[in-house]
Amino acid sequence: MSHTVEILSVGTELLLGNVANTDAQILSQGLSELGLNVFWHTVVGDNPQRAREAVSIAKGRADVIITTGGLGPTCDDLTKNVLAEAFGKKLVFDEPSAQRVRDWFQRTGRPMTDNNLQQAMLPEGCTVLVNDWGTAPGCAFEAEGVHVIMLPGPPSECRPMFHHRAKPYLLSLSEGVIASHTVKLFGIGESSMEAQLREQMNAMTNPTLAPYAKEGECELRVTAKAASDEEAQALLQPTVEQVKGLFGDKVYGVDVPSLEYVVIQGLKEKGLTLGCAESCTGGLMAKRLTDIPGASAVFKGGIVSYTNEVKQNVLQVPEELLEQHGAVSGQVAAAMAQGARRALGCDIALSSTGVAGPDRDDRGNEVGVMFVAIATQSGVHVRPLRLGTRPMRERLRIQTASHAFDLARRYLSGLAFEG
Amino acid sequence: MSHTVEILSVGTELLLGNVANTDAQILSQGLSELGLNVFWHTVVGDNPQRAREAVSIAKGRADVIITTGGLGPTCDDLTKNVLAEAFGKKLVFDEPSAQRVRDWFQRTGRPMTDNNLQQAMLPEGCTVLVNDWGTAPGCAFEAEGVHVIMLPGPPSECRPMFHHRAKPYLLSLSEGVIASHTVKLFGIGESSMEAQLREQMNAMTNPTLAPYAKEGECELRVTAKAASDEEAQALLQPTVEQVKGLFGDKVYGVDVPSLEYVVIQGLKEKGLTLGCAESCTGGLMAKRLTDIPGASAVFKGGIVSYTNEVKQNVLQVPEELLEQHGAVSGQVAAAMAQGARRALGCDIALSSTGVAGPDRDDRGNEVGVMFVAIATQSGVHVRPLRLGTRPMRERLRIQTASHAFDLARRYLSGLAFEG
Repeated sequence: MSHTVEILSVGTELLLGNVANTDAQILSQGLSELGLNVFWHTVVGDNPQRAREAVSIAKGRADVIITTGGLGPTCDDLTKNVLAEAFGKKLVFDEPSAQRVRDWFQRTGRPMTDNNLQQAMLPEGCTVLVNDWGTAPGCAFEAEGVHVIMLPGPPSECRPMFHHRAKPYLLSLSEGVIASHTVKLFGIGESSMEAQLREQMNAMTNPTLAPYAKEGECELRVTAKAASDEEAQALLQPTVEQVKGLFGDKVYGVDVPSLEYVVIQGLKEKGLTLGCAESCTGGLMAKRLTDIPGASAVFKGGIVSYTNEVKQNVLQVPEELLEQHGAVSGQVAAAMAQGARRALGCDIALSSTGVAGPDRDDRGNEVGVMFVAIATQSGVHVRPLRLGTRPMRERLRIQTASHAFDLARRYLSGLAFEG
Repeated sequence: MSHTVEILSVGTELLLGNVANTDAQILSQGLSELGLNVFWHTVVGDNPQRAREAVSIAKGRADVIITTGGLGPTCDDLTKNVLAEAFGKKLVFDEPSAQRVRDWFQRTGRPMTDNNLQQAMLPEGCTVLVNDWGTAPGCAFEAEGVHVIMLPGPPSECRPMFHHRAKPYLLSLSEGVIASHTVKLFGIGESSMEAQLREQMNAMTNPTLAPYAKEGECELRVTAKAASDEEAQALLQPTVEQVKGLFGDKVYGVDVPSLEYVVIQGLKEKGLTLGCAESCTGGLMAKRLTDIPGASAVFKGGIVSYTNEVKQNVLQVPEELLEQHGAVSGQVAAAMAQGARRALGCDIALSSTGVAGPDRDDRGNEVGVMFVAIATQSGVHVRPLRLGTRPMRERLRIQTASHAFDLARRYLSGLAFEG
């Protein structure tokens, strides 16, 4: 049977627009992967009357209600009170939950006010969802044919609570298992990827193929349902291989978090070090590489050369090159990468130079004209980019950094630089 | 009179979690600033039956319904059809809108299929909201005591359509004008800011004070309603001055976008140049500075020294210092800033070193132990930070970079480094 889900978020901060409802997004992704149909998102503020009305509507149309927020002392445990009342349940004191609240305050060295123990009052007969990421426990129960799951609102608690607590509970509702793999691609547009796959996508029912596009990258999620994980994997594997065959070296990984992660892993495997010289990306390449915990094992550092002076003095880019070709040129990109390799003493160096906008440069280069380069022991390779004048500055910088990472992962995998 | 608003978003992509509902966030912010109460967000998919039911609920509880998405040919103009039907209105052909659709396709050089002209079918008697950012026009009407405003879904269309089309329409609903100023603070916690303001905030009705916190920064929005902008400004000014007086040099600006923006502006005013040397922030400082268009006029560049080797070779940090105090120390932070000032040839240099996690460093420094420094012609100043082990790696890096920017804006404003 197919369940229909409503996600009910409680929080005035959402209605004021202080934050976007990313909880609902993350939950929706996870629920779709479980094969559950999310049909409604609702947001109400910390207001008992409107929360009550929203629950009454949800109860009438969904058979799974997942709430986020409105737990904990700052809102008088609004969500728990309203949901318990709606399903005619009493709140009862749960000593293990109380102990975990006390322990949490002791561990973090903060004084605990008494109202915190309210959080240990939970609907009678519920499954307690232990919160290892904050103080307010979640809970789940079934009543009147509806499954109710309550999760805390802060994303740093909601996400792990969903993955480690709610998901196992929801999996027990669905027969069999759902498994998926994500194939990540770089260097192909979404529409061209979809065009190549359209017939297959429409013909497939199990596994299914879902394409996503983001900041110049694409991914394909392959999802299968089966009685066991083994069977699901057996269904998935041929499709994953087929997709990999179809898109060849545009596939940079399966179930990997990002292009820069693949670069860092490749460096670790090969025992090589990386550095970068950035002009138009202005530190974004280094920032993305060092977002990855443990990058320091292979990433030596970077030089952001935002002026010709720094290009000359720190990267030893020859003045003649800058005068003859301008800072935005393949020649300068190559010299920057080679200079970074020398200055930083790394095996591989990446570079970027270009016009991120909003205006053309003083040589008349259009916004979106970019060059990335890679220098290795075997020489230097430049990739010229024409990213167009329409994307915003931030997007241009992200795409440019990704192209530099693509050069590195191709080198580390022994692939041709231009596929 | 006070209006109550429901934002109804139509789009299966939201229910699948492909994107977060940022339209609802942006609209909520704008509506709150207009003094309208947003009480509900609802999301439904591209499904006529569920959209109809959601409209019927919204009609029963809100007196302003703003829809996003579900306009245009890919969804058969679902939203327009459902809303017109719910309020007993016919859709009629609007030739000016049809002409704009034709013009849009001609301008972008794309072939127009006939279904695009469906977009010119609009509820009889509505106010057409001309879409200069895409093809689907928005519209607004009042019926049965409810104001209905329909906006396109893509954020790149929804945002300008809200600001340039919906806002003027909504302003005509409210008497007088609403104006606001935002006071930005750094170096004070949200709870301490609120504690200092609580009595005032509760006592105030016009203007009102609303605090927000974000990544270690705080802001206070002061909003006033009056018959004219002059009167509103006259109401706002004393409160803005009062807040500035109360928080002194923790206020870094009024109506400014960010700390780094204030730094770039200060450098331009003083005719000084900036550079940075980053360890734990790994390029984030340079990235944030170069996010600002025109930063190149004053930002010379940066060095990401992720290894001791780069600290020694590029920044000339003495080996003895690294051995004696370790890379995570005030001494090394100072030497990095001085080294960056020399290597980059800039007037002011900022530096960062610390443990961003997830693990302690090899000298046993806890996650969250950070040092930022500033080097100028008059010497060097180090600020030690203990940011705690709880924030995530990304947040620690953001806060550390902000502390370095705080040193720069204090120097540029002639303030003491530690307020």
